[in-house]
Amino acid sequence: MIRRGLMQPYPLNVAMLCRRVESQFPDKTVTTRRQGRDTTITCRRLMQRSRQLADALRRAGVRPGDCVSTLMWNSQEHLEAYFAVPGIGAVLHTVNARLPADTIGALLDDTRPVAMLADASLLSTLRQVRLPSSLKLIVRVADGDPGNDERAAAIDYEGLLAGGSRAYEWPEIDEQAACGICHTSGTTGRSKGVVYSHRSTVLHAMSMLFADGIALSEHDVCLTVVPMFHAVGWGFPYACALAGASQALSWRQSDPQTLAGLIEQTGATLATAVPTVWINLLEQLRSGEIDAARLRSLTRLPIGGATVSSDLIDGYAQFGIRVQHCWGMTEVSPLGLVSTRRSWLSDESWSQRRLTPGVPLPGCELRVMTPQGTAAPAGSGAAGELQIRGPWVADAYLDPSAEDGRGGGDRFDTDSDGRRWLKTGDIAQIDSDGYVRIVDRAKDLIKSGGEWISSLELESALVQHPGVREAAVVGVPDSVWQERPVAFVSLVEDRDEAQLDLAGYLASRLPRWQIPERFIVLQELPRNNTGKLDKARLRELTRGDGRHGG
Amino acid sequence: MIRRGLMQPYPLNVAMLCRRVESQFPDKTVTTRRQGRDTTITCRRLMQRSRQLADALRRAGVRPGDCVSTLMWNSQEHLEAYFAVPGIGAVLHTVNARLPADTIGALLDDTRPVAMLADASLLSTLRQVRLPSSLKLIVRVADGDPGNDERAAAIDYEGLLAGGSRAYEWPEIDEQAACGICHTSGTTGRSKGVVYSHRSTVLHAMSMLFADGIALSEHDVCLTVVPMFHAVGWGFPYACALAGASQALSWRQSDPQTLAGLIEQTGATLATAVPTVWINLLEQLRSGEIDAARLRSLTRLPIGGATVSSDLIDGYAQFGIRVQHCWGMTEVSPLGLVSTRRSWLSDESWSQRRLTPGVPLPGCELRVMTPQGTAAPAGSGAAGELQIRGPWVADAYLDPSAEDGRGGGDRFDTDSDGRRWLKTGDIAQIDSDGYVRIVDRAKDLIKSGGEWISSLELESALVQHPGVREAAVVGVPDSVWQERPVAFVSLVEDRDEAQLDLAGYLASRLPRWQIPERFIVLQELPRNNTGKLDKARLRELTRGDGRHGG
Repeated sequence: MIRRGLMQPYPLNVAMLCRRVESQFPDKTVTTRRQGRDTTITCRRLMQRSRQLADALRRAGVRPGDCVSTLMWNSQEHLEAYFAVPGIGAVLHTVNARLPADTIGALLDDTRPVAMLADASLLSTLRQVRLPSSLKLIVRVADGDPGNDERAAAIDYEGLLAGGSRAYEWPEIDEQAACGICHTSGTTGRSKGVVYSHRSTVLHAMSMLFADGIALSEHDVCLTVVPMFHAVGWGFPYACALAGASQALSWRQSDPQTLAGLIEQTGATLATAVPTVWINLLEQLRSGEIDAARLRSLTRLPIGGATVSSDLIDGYAQFGIRVQHCWGMTEVSPLGLVSTRRSWLSDESWSQRRLTPGVPLPGCELRVMTPQGTAAPAGSGAAGELQIRGPWVADAYLDPSAEDGRGGGDRFDTDSDGRRWLKTGDIAQIDSDGYVRIVDRAKDLIKSGGEWISSLELESALVQHPGVREAAVVGVPDSVWQERPVAFVSLVEDRDEAQLDLAGYLASRLPRWQIPERFIVLQELPRNNTGKLDKARLRELTRGDGRHGG
Repeated sequence: MIRRGLMQPYPLNVAMLCRRVESQFPDKTVTTRRQGRDTTITCRRLMQRSRQLADALRRAGVRPGDCVSTLMWNSQEHLEAYFAVPGIGAVLHTVNARLPADTIGALLDDTRPVAMLADASLLSTLRQVRLPSSLKLIVRVADGDPGNDERAAAIDYEGLLAGGSRAYEWPEIDEQAACGICHTSGTTGRSKGVVYSHRSTVLHAMSMLFADGIALSEHDVCLTVVPMFHAVGWGFPYACALAGASQALSWRQSDPQTLAGLIEQTGATLATAVPTVWINLLEQLRSGEIDAARLRSLTRLPIGGATVSSDLIDGYAQFGIRVQHCWGMTEVSPLGLVSTRRSWLSDESWSQRRLTPGVPLPGCELRVMTPQGTAAPAGSGAAGELQIRGPWVADAYLDPSAEDGRGGGDRFDTDSDGRRWLKTGDIAQIDSDGYVRIVDRAKDLIKSGGEWISSLELESALVQHPGVREAAVVGVPDSVWQERPVAFVSLVEDRDEAQLDLAGYLASRLPRWQIPERFIVLQELPRNNTGKLDKARLRELTRGDGRHGG
């Protein structure tokens, strides 16, 4: 009997990424563009500084299993914390800097950090936060803002580093140890903490190197615009370390001119952000405000977090830039699907699939649970809740009040074979070629006259209209139909609302009963703190209108 | 304190590959070309048959931890065993079909299989093997050879399958469980068994999908010529499953016409074999015996197992085919290095590096131990023994006589941080760009007058000569210098030995004292059972020559 393999006990951990960067890619760079100030350092120096930060935190009393929170925009210093905090076995908790102070306080109650690193420009926010008693150390990261140093406890980041050794040796952390915590965006109810392990972090980084997917390479220079406090910056900071790619970080800035300048300066080959950012940039490319030649190094835009329109895909294609539609969740580290063309698709089949979020990355398994509570047969196209499993998928939410720290039991399922599944809350279909079509968020379905209307499907149809920039559909109470859809849109510049005929446009594409009751044009659609469409706010805007009273 | 991540307990195992193939790529194919017979099946069918084989083996009494040996050439049935045997938690032991019967018997004594699958054409070999008492079941795989069915115990493979259910459900195997065993080629001393785990197998497969490396994609069709009994067929059978690539298998055949036909028929995009196979094919491409148009689908040739010449690289480049030089060992699952061009290299720098086996795959760490017993500083270029660690590197050899089953202690090292390293036995240098140069096998160094002469360096220099097809250098005893090099070469067709002036050619490239004493031209260089140059035989050929007597 030969029970076990005889292979090296090699833990998959963040230290392995640090060693790789240092030994293989010391001359790669990390560039941070803050307002009026650019900083570029080599990865050799980045790793020395990460070692210094690790050693300094350790000397300051941070122990394995302790949480260290960050309240920071995208920067070299944030990246140093990405390596240093898990590198000593502590847990990196990246706090959304756009949240109101009381919400930040609630998140810190969840994780009870012993230390916090904060951008100087965010200290005024932090001052309003009721801080947990666990917090012993606040470190101020200079970011060009004078900051407010009244909080006596705040010590300077560079001063802290100076007390750490650049010869600090990374200990070998168990791969199941906690590595980082991100909170979900919490569009419904309270944000929930996802606790990544070192193992899940490294395996997710590996998945971003696969040829069929993001295909991140040492030849890439990656501009991460998506905030590093959102779902591990979509995983790019760690994946770039594994691949050996240089990185560019735009601090809190996502305006077209800043991004174009940073792409031009660093030779960025890919850049990540939510669609709005790229819609804005595309408009300036088309108008000539930004010379396309400045983006000549850019080959692809992995886009996640919202529906992508064909106009966006076609628009960038004209400039030689490929939009890669991705689907993820904080709970999935976050990438689960990437829109890649499968070899057997005809041009026509692909053109029908390219607006979907794509196919599962190797390592992710999917199933669709029908309303009857059974898994839909593969390729059947039946709609139901999308469930996902894999080595970088969450098994529970952090619940400090539970004895085992595990919460959110109703969002996770165990099948008859004992396998665990995450319920994504998305309603989806999977076609016979493996492409997933997200029909809707379960909570965004509109129940009208005993039928479901998909707000997502309506939104997708609306953004295909050449005059529509962005669209959001909500359900409003209706005395006859129970609920009816109302559409909000923002328009492409110079478009005249009167000429749009959105109802007529939709009527040729969708059943009559699905056409929204009303179309409301807004200058900008409201967004919440995580940059997602704020449907609660839109529902408020529909209130006080007698036609829809219950 | 947050000690552990809250991610799914998702084991990395072969069942995960099976589920992926079945759910995502059912219409991909596996084609086997035997003499006079082609078989193509879909992956849907392949997986049904693998389930049947798994269930049938289970019903026949094969239990988790039991070993099942194969004595087979490359075929669909061998691939089915690759999935079915580890799929039930048993251990797949792939036996080199070219070994003599007594050696095969010794290997089986190591693993003590309960069952064996053998090609009909290999039953005559098997009949000469002293079989271990553990073996209860011999299964005959029809391969066009009448075979010899005298051995009463041999039952038919298709008959066995018929008794298994195609609805068999893969159990969830622990990722640390043994998955497969390959024996090293044993050029020195006895072959040693490497016991792969499910985890190491899956992680190695993942590494073959990385964009910087093999970059295996669902768009690929992979022709595996390297025998599936050698180092897991270099890892391609499992990596193709993870990527979703179709596979082509050439049974025991590696002649140019068979390969060209199979490439043409299946649209193979990459093909794997040792250099000799590709040297032969290139000669027929150049002579026009094989029309290059037949290989139009082929984009790259991952080559391992021996030094690659610039003539081979340039020769295939003329036909639009890229040679990817790889370095591996049975102990490394087997790939550790792949020759990829790093982004910062000039054309000239790259042309100097492309003959090296390349740079470490993400996940593999290297160090060079100098004769002084210390690790050479990174980028120093100092020569010493190459050591490697990573999640798919062996930690011990199988030793059934040891209580814990672990042997080969002297080939493995533990550093001061408790990290494990495999001693490769290769003498190497690592340059400042990360490229590894294998200077020699430790045992192939020639000690001459107190200096080391690298037989590998001499061989590399010789195969750069336009008239030389293959070269091998051995050391022979010398009364003055202790040892002196003797070179054996085979020539490119139609080349006249008299015009070569190999000594003069080398003299312009190497120090005078390194020039071999003699150059011996052979029609073909002798090879051992694993296809490697048989240096023991070459040393024999040099004996009885007074000039070199001790």
